[in-house]
Formats: sequence, structure tokens, C-alpha cells
Amino acid sequence: MMNAQQIVLASRPKGLPTNDNFRTESITLPGLQNGEVLIKTKYFSVDPYMRGRMNYAKSYTPPYNVNAPIYGGGIGEIIESNSDNFKKGDVVRGNFPWATEVVIDAKPLMKIDTNIAPETYFLGILGMPGLTAYFGLLYIGKPNPMDTVVISGAAGAVGIVVGQIAKLKACRVVGIAGSEQKIKMLKNDFHFDEVINYKTNSDLNKAIKDACPKGVDIYFDNVGGTISDAVIANINFHARIVLCGQIALYNSAETPMGPRLQPILLTRSALMQGFIVGDFQNFFSEGIEQLAQWIKENKLWYKETIIEGFDKLPDAFLGLFSGKNIGKMIVKV
Amino acid sequence: MMNAQQIVLASRPKGLPTNDNFRTESITLPGLQNGEVLIKTKYFSVDPYMRGRMNYAKSYTPPYNVNAPIYGGGIGEIIESNSDNFKKGDVVRGNFPWATEVVIDAKPLMKIDTNIAPETYFLGILGMPGLTAYFGLLYIGKPNPMDTVVISGAAGAVGIVVGQIAKLKACRVVGIAGSEQKIKMLKNDFHFDEVINYKTNSDLNKAIKDACPKGVDIYFDNVGGTISDAVIANINFHARIVLCGQIALYNSAETPMGPRLQPILLTRSALMQGFIVGDFQNFFSEGIEQLAQWIKENKLWYKETIIEGFDKLPDAFLGLFSGKNIGKMIVKV
Repeated sequence: MMNAQQIVLASRPKGLPTNDNFRTESITLPGLQNGEVLIKTKYFSVDPYMRGRMNYAKSYTPPYNVNAPIYGGGIGEIIESNSDNFKKGDVVRGNFPWATEVVIDAKPLMKIDTNIAPETYFLGILGMPGLTAYFGLLYIGKPNPMDTVVISGAAGAVGIVVGQIAKLKACRVVGIAGSEQKIKMLKNDFHFDEVINYKTNSDLNKAIKDACPKGVDIYFDNVGGTISDAVIANINFHARIVLCGQIALYNSAETPMGPRLQPILLTRSALMQGFIVGDFQNFFSEGIEQLAQWIKENKLWYKETIIEGFDKLPDAFLGLFSGKNIGKMIVKV
Repeated sequence: MMNAQQIVLASRPKGLPTNDNFRTESITLPGLQNGEVLIKTKYFSVDPYMRGRMNYAKSYTPPYNVNAPIYGGGIGEIIESNSDNFKKGDVVRGNFPWATEVVIDAKPLMKIDTNIAPETYFLGILGMPGLTAYFGLLYIGKPNPMDTVVISGAAGAVGIVVGQIAKLKACRVVGIAGSEQKIKMLKNDFHFDEVINYKTNSDLNKAIKDACPKGVDIYFDNVGGTISDAVIANINFHARIVLCGQIALYNSAETPMGPRLQPILLTRSALMQGFIVGDFQNFFSEGIEQLAQWIKENKLWYKETIIEGFDKLPDAFLGLFSGKNIGKMIVKV
């Protein structure tokens, strides 16, 4: 019998979550059933989509239960195995409860090859955010050379990858972010053509028009809300709007209102497509291979914000909504 | 020298157009230049999209000029030809000024074969509305057997064709219309599975839920506004929203507001695509051939509302916005 710490959803947040919505508990782990493994978790990914699962609502993933652990992407090391597919010492990626040690079915786990890249990369650029960027931009956005691509939440885990792939495809890349530090990083480290600070710009519509003199061909949207209104007002004929996230709206208790988009989409023969990375499951190996290749060739860079301490998981998650992260936000257990 | 009557845009409408926005004038036609023909117009099509051209705004077609004639789809007979491609007596389809006789460049005209179908059909089911239905449903909506397809403006020129093609593709077809006469027609003549009267239903969201117990897979939208809000609240995962028209919004002077759609599209991996029939220009011959084949096999029926008198053009156009037409609205000169 082994003891562990776990973090549960204490209550469903109304609007912006707070620390009160989380509770840390001590538990005793059960013994291993056939096909199960015992894992010591090493890293957890915190992601904006998890806010949606805290509501009780129809979505692409089922809601978390109150008084049950939060689940999220993680990296862990197997310390005991009752599965033929994994042995002690293997490092795996999986969807784990927020706990220091977990007993879990081995089937959905993926062994990761730390020769390709550092293990945390498999929660980021070679994991869900990287693949989200890859498929959203290439399969929905379908960039052509010289297209203008605008990215909101540009300094986030997905945004920095979208921008770099768009540059590799010879597009003009315009980011939107919320601090001078992020803007400097996107311009200097990631070679974005323009970056707009949405916090200091009083006329976002005009700022986008100025940064995109030929209009917007692709809008990769991680945030939604009034930032999106300003971008969408500037789209071109046959524009593609890739809906990846709506972080500005996740904490809305009421149905958010805004300008109706149908007239713009109609008169510009434009497309708006929501997606989750799972829609492209059949193409994952292609995506990982190509991303790893670009990393190897130094064509793709990557940033992480790593916060230390299992008990910091709620703070790290809450930090996503105040723009605390640069690149992928990860917690080291 | 020949005299003719023409109707010009007297002023740009603010909101709903009125007869005051139109003016009839007598003109003297110029002589024929090389490549031109003199046409006696026989039929004109009036269509909701023409409202957009009365505004001074960026759209897929340039705005009409004030004090210049309105242009629209028409059928006419050539009475004098200075073109090698057409002779006296040919019946052609073209984009004509609203006039009883016109002198016009022959190049964009299309000779029509009245053996295939009555000549007015080339303004409707074998013209822009029929092709709009065909490409919007099949190329964007991509119906699968058993899909639930909801059509707003279901009794209009496009809607009745969409519904019938969807039935041919083994879908469940639910229409939305605004009078008991239209509902009877859609059920009895066009075999829609359900038709909802949006004018008498106090809870449209519930009416759609009841009519679509398995949710909405394809929404073919001709109207926009609150009707669309109710349909979109009921879409399924991987739903396709085909934006064909927004008649409810064409007369808005202000930017119309409504619930933000991005969260729904995102959480349901749904697509929304605006289009105009010209996007599918390269496939027109396929579309016309297939539609003509279905008509020949009695698989596709068609309704027209024909109003007599050149001077009735403005009234017929205005009637589109009060739901006066059943099927395609046509004016006989």
C-alpha cells in the first residue's frame, strides 16, 4: 500500500476559477490489477481547455466530477508494471489524475523516446499543443506563400508553433499578445513580422489594418472575444478562421454576445472551423515526424515555463488566464 | 434609335427598401457596337442578394450606382445582333439592366436550350438558385445518409431545391418557413419530414430540438438572425453550417449583435462556411447536368411565383423581404 497526494475539483468555478475550487488530499493507492502500472508522475501540462471541463456542459471532453481528481496530460516514470507493454523505468506520456503517484490502465499510455527531444517536449511541441498548431494551421488554415496569418494568444504554447510553421510556409505572420516581454520574444526569437499589444492599443481594428495592409487570409484564434472581432473585421475573401481556443470566453457565466459574424463570412466566402486535435488522430504520426524533423534542423524553436512543485498545479493553471505563461506552461512534480 | 424604359436606383435604402428608392425613366438606346446585341427582355429574376448591392459596401459584387440602372439576372430574346455568336431569335440568359430593351456586350451571354426545360427555369432551378443549392449542400454540407438537415427560408428558390436534394441523399429534412401555406407546400409537394413555422412558435429552440431528436448535422442558412441562433444551439459534433443568405440582416443599418458562435463551433468541431455560387464556377456544367437529369426523372420539382409587368420589378423585389414569394420570384416583362 502506497500513499500519494492528489488534487480534486472542490467545486465548479463560476467565472474565473480561484484556489478555492481545488483541494489537496492524501490517498492510499490500490494494488495493481492486471494490465495496470504504478507511475511516479514527473511533469503535468496545464492547458486552457481544462477550464471547459470544470463546467457541467456538453463539449468534446466530459466534465470533471466534483470531489474527484482533475485529469490532465502528464509525463511519468513506471515504478511497477503489471502490463506486458511497459517495464520499470519506462518514461510514458498519458492522461493522469493530478497526483504524485497513480495506478492506471497501461493501454492508452505512450512510451516516449527521450533521444528525440527532452521529455517535457512531449507535453508541448511534440504533444497536444504542437499537433494542434500543426493540424489547425496546415489542414484547416491551408496557408499559401504570401498569405497574411494573424495569431491571437501568439505567445502561448500553440501560438508560437503556429507562427513558426507559417513562416516556414513563407507567410507574413502577425501576432497578438499582451506584454512587451512577449512581443520582444515573438519578434526577436521567433521572427514574427509584426506583433500587436492588445492591452496598450486603443484601436485594435486599426492596429490590425496597419499590420496587415493586404488584409487577413488566415486567423488562428486562441482567444476569442473583442480581439477576434477586430481581426475578423479585416478578413479577406476566402479567408480561413481556425478556432483553436476561446480563452477570453471560458470563464463567462452567461452566453457572451458580440457582432454577428455570418454577414462577414457570407460576403467574403470565408470559412470558420472549430476543431480539436483528436479530429486528426489518424495523421498524428505524420505530424510528430515533421515537427521532430523541423526541431532537428533548428527550424522550429520552443519555449516553456516550468513551475516547480506538485502543490503549484492550481496556481499554474490559474496563471493561464492572467497571461503568466510564456510558451508551454508545465508543472514539475 | 429605339426607346426603352429602365428602372434606376434613385437613392440607397436605409434599412428596408421602399418604392422611393427606385425610379422609372425613358431612355433612347444607342446603336450597336461591334460584338453587341439588342435584346428584348422577357423575364427578370429578383433575389435577396441584390439588397446588398444597394449599399455602398465591400462585398462579393460591386455596389449599384445611384441614378444608374439596377442589374439582375434575366432572360431575353435577341432582336438584332452584331456578334458572331448569336443570331436574331436566340433566347439568352444574362445579367441585364432593369430595362425593357437593352444593348449589351454579347460575350457573357449564355444561349439557353428550351428543350431541356421552360425558359424561366434557367433563372431558377437551372440557374443561380439551383446551382447555389446544389453546391452549397453537396460541396460544403457534404450530406451523409441519415443526417438531419435543417433549412431556413425553406420555401424560397434555394430552399426548396436544397430540401429535395437532401431527401435524394437519404437525409432527414426539417424546414423553417413563415406561413401555413408554405408549410403545407413543403410537406405535401416537397416531402419535407418536418416544417417549423417560425412566426407562430414562441420557443424556436425547443421546436428545433423536438423536430431534430438526433440534433442538427447540416444547417443550410438562408436567413440568419434569431432563427439561426435557435438552430445553431442544436448542432451536433462535426456539424456543417452552410451560409447562403442572411436576409434577416440585409436591411440592418447597424452591425447586428447576437450570441457569439465561436464557443459552440469550437466545442463541437463544427464548420461554418460562407459562399457564393461563383466559388464553384469550374463545376457549373456538372451541376446543371445533374439538376436537369433529376428534373427529367421527376425527382426534382420546382415552384415559381411569376409577377407580370416590367413596372412591378420594385414591388416584386420588396416582396422578398415580406415573404411574398413561394419558390423563385420572377417578373415577366
